Amino acid sequence: MKCSIPKGTRDFLPMEMARRNYIFDTIRNVFKAFAFEPIETPSLENLSTLMGKYGEEGDKLLFKVLNSGDFMDGVDFNQDYRKVAPRICERGLRYDLTVPFARFVVQHRDQISFPFRRYQLQPVWRADRPQKGRYREFYQCDADMIGSTSLLNELELVQMVDAVFNKFGIEVTLKINNRKVLAGIADLIGAPDKLVDITVAIDKLDKIGLDKVREELSERGLSNDQIIALDPVFNLSGSADDKLQQLSSLFQGNEVGTKGVAELSELFGYIAQVQPKCHVELDLTLARGLNYYTGAIFEVKAHNVSIGSICGGGRYDNLTGIFGMPDVSGVGISFGADRIYDVLTELNMFPACLGQSAQVLFINFGAESLPYCISSAAKLRAAGISTLVYPDAAKMKKQMDYANKNNIPFVVFTGEAEIAAQTLTVKDMATGQQETLTIEQMLQRFCNA
Amino acid sequence: MKCSIPKGTRDFLPMEMARRNYIFDTIRNVFKAFAFEPIETPSLENLSTLMGKYGEEGDKLLFKVLNSGDFMDGVDFNQDYRKVAPRICERGLRYDLTVPFARFVVQHRDQISFPFRRYQLQPVWRADRPQKGRYREFYQCDADMIGSTSLLNELELVQMVDAVFNKFGIEVTLKINNRKVLAGIADLIGAPDKLVDITVAIDKLDKIGLDKVREELSERGLSNDQIIALDPVFNLSGSADDKLQQLSSLFQGNEVGTKGVAELSELFGYIAQVQPKCHVELDLTLARGLNYYTGAIFEVKAHNVSIGSICGGGRYDNLTGIFGMPDVSGVGISFGADRIYDVLTELNMFPACLGQSAQVLFINFGAESLPYCISSAAKLRAAGISTLVYPDAAKMKKQMDYANKNNIPFVVFTGEAEIAAQTLTVKDMATGQQETLTIEQMLQRFCNA
Repeated sequence: MKCSIPKGTRDFLPMEMARRNYIFDTIRNVFKAFAFEPIETPSLENLSTLMGKYGEEGDKLLFKVLNSGDFMDGVDFNQDYRKVAPRICERGLRYDLTVPFARFVVQHRDQISFPFRRYQLQPVWRADRPQKGRYREFYQCDADMIGSTSLLNELELVQMVDAVFNKFGIEVTLKINNRKVLAGIADLIGAPDKLVDITVAIDKLDKIGLDKVREELSERGLSNDQIIALDPVFNLSGSADDKLQQLSSLFQGNEVGTKGVAELSELFGYIAQVQPKCHVELDLTLARGLNYYTGAIFEVKAHNVSIGSICGGGRYDNLTGIFGMPDVSGVGISFGADRIYDVLTELNMFPACLGQSAQVLFINFGAESLPYCISSAAKLRAAGISTLVYPDAAKMKKQMDYANKNNIPFVVFTGEAEIAAQTLTVKDMATGQQETLTIEQMLQRFCNA
Repeated sequence: MKCSIPKGTRDFLPMEMARRNYIFDTIRNVFKAFAFEPIETPSLENLSTLMGKYGEEGDKLLFKVLNSGDFMDGVDFNQDYRKVAPRICERGLRYDLTVPFARFVVQHRDQISFPFRRYQLQPVWRADRPQKGRYREFYQCDADMIGSTSLLNELELVQMVDAVFNKFGIEVTLKINNRKVLAGIADLIGAPDKLVDITVAIDKLDKIGLDKVREELSERGLSNDQIIALDPVFNLSGSADDKLQQLSSLFQGNEVGTKGVAELSELFGYIAQVQPKCHVELDLTLARGLNYYTGAIFEVKAHNVSIGSICGGGRYDNLTGIFGMPDVSGVGISFGADRIYDVLTELNMFPACLGQSAQVLFINFGAESLPYCISSAAKLRAAGISTLVYPDAAKMKKQMDYANKNNIPFVVFTGEAEIAAQTLTVKDMATGQQETLTIEQMLQRFCNA
């Protein structure tokens, strides 16, 4: 029988786990410092909760779970598979953490107090075509604040992005835009109904270039005049303030555009106060694919690595509206743990100490020495020191090889002499040096280290 | 639109998360102290990996995931649903962590060094009928050591059980038996082919009582004589040593039974050396449902709570054999986080401090005071202190209410006077006391706390 796992999924070995946990812990600690509270939602949601929330493409990428028992009972299989699927599958795997969060807020509105800030680190599943850096099961690390329209929330997301990537030691650019500015532009060129088309096309600028974006805009029904009228957006230059001033004049009399510029001005004003270490940039071509954003939008790109955005988010004014609770504004950010992993790997930025498991290996000298060996190991373990007792009284060479192979830094011998003197002989595997210590001395050594 | 989640699944609010994380962290820290290394496997496995590993009942309880795209193409729907399911579903959600671990070991045999100890804390899914304390998505916390037949491994599992429940402050009984003893008994009563039937029936003793067990044994084809011949097993008495001595005479000339007694004697000998705080008991009626166990079996029951076993495990001599890698012995233990949660709740044993999120709330006095407020908050956050800035310049009462409602222990005022003096007025919400501190003094206060 051949062993394999489904395409696009992964096993994680101990070293990978250590590195992933380093990423999760770093992000989680920043979330906690900003007083976000953890929640979790089930992996399985009702398909009715998920369907229609991610566009037609998203619906296709949902993993659907077959109903238990006789799923065929009463189902007409003489129709298109797209009609059959929802009849035989009531549940699906979550596609992101945002829609379940909206569902959660509505369902538990009486148990939480607003403004509510939650973080959530859980896997999501997408039946995407697997490719380098794209998986069918991957973790999202989301923080959202809901129930407040204050732009201080946006500022805090900026501070969090800055704190996280500063801790990782990765240089990044945080790009900021505002959906209201994009709406203003759509108005400006006389295509207010084409906001989504414009957004989707502009979003690809980085990947496909300006000419292709223009082609796509044309395919999506914009006239040549309208496409040319977009040029000022691509051509704005200078600092964020400069760009906002140019936009401000473009938008005279345009309500939504003017509002967008005002929001961006306020936010960039706050940002100037906190002086983030990362590079923050107003990028009017930033669009973000998802349609539920209504205000600020964010995206983070790492310097010196050619990889897509490693973090993104934005303001949504009515996410809970789809579940019957209108007018609750929220803003959130999502860190892409898998891409951050790739960036840290490529830049060789993981701390060297990660993945060390056992600190100490007790050599097994056989039955006679076991009671002393076991009770000494128990004392180290009780102090939280990761300790192994070699399970078999194997040849010394085999046991020492095991310590070397597994990078265990200290080996302890409990032979006759040590038992008689109630001491331990401790070998530092890096230096080869041996010392005779009491268990108390050894505990002290480790707990001060 | 009504908001709900699938039957048998759960949302976790921040307080529940804090309690669950307390459970996971406690177990994880013990696993680490015993030098187990973390791994993770995908939620989705190929159905071929899962099917046939959990008995017929288990196969029914597997959640199957519908193939993407046109899953109907080429499938004959004029047959029983049990035949159709594997044609339209190639993948399923993992049912436990043991079979995926066996698959992992075989698949990555060249990347790990034996003996290999891994721990794994991940959810599993079962399409069980939901009922109190039984969920369709729940976490397992497993530790296994593979590649060593030494009974020191079993001892370490006993020590880990002891350490975990001692940290929780729960009194428990750890029941131990050995499958070889059960096999010996099956031999003894002349029903070696009925070992599984005997095991399955005896396993229910706690739940249905001796009479019903006898009925079931009869239904499973044991003769009355054979059932009566089982009586000595139910009637053994005294300490573990006493019972083992009685068994030893019963088993004279019975190879497998004698081996089982020898293993138990060795293990109880080790246990006597480490003197666990929990009650350890030899229970010859302990059987454990799953069929892959071949040596020691374990089960933990909490005192003073009527709930099933909260932890269990055992020795399996050939788990990886199903994936083509024979003769690798392993032994492992699984902690039931959800039941431990219920026990800690019922006994009111959760630490009181859990679930505190924000330590400090900065009152928002509006635009003028924001720069000072934001930069002070940033300093606390950089030191890892969970800090909120109220996002809106709402009425003081509303902001103070928020602090009270969310049990935030300290509120900070940064009004005109504080800004002028570059100080913070800090109110202790428990005592009502106010103090004026510099940011450095405040940091010092918190970091020493």
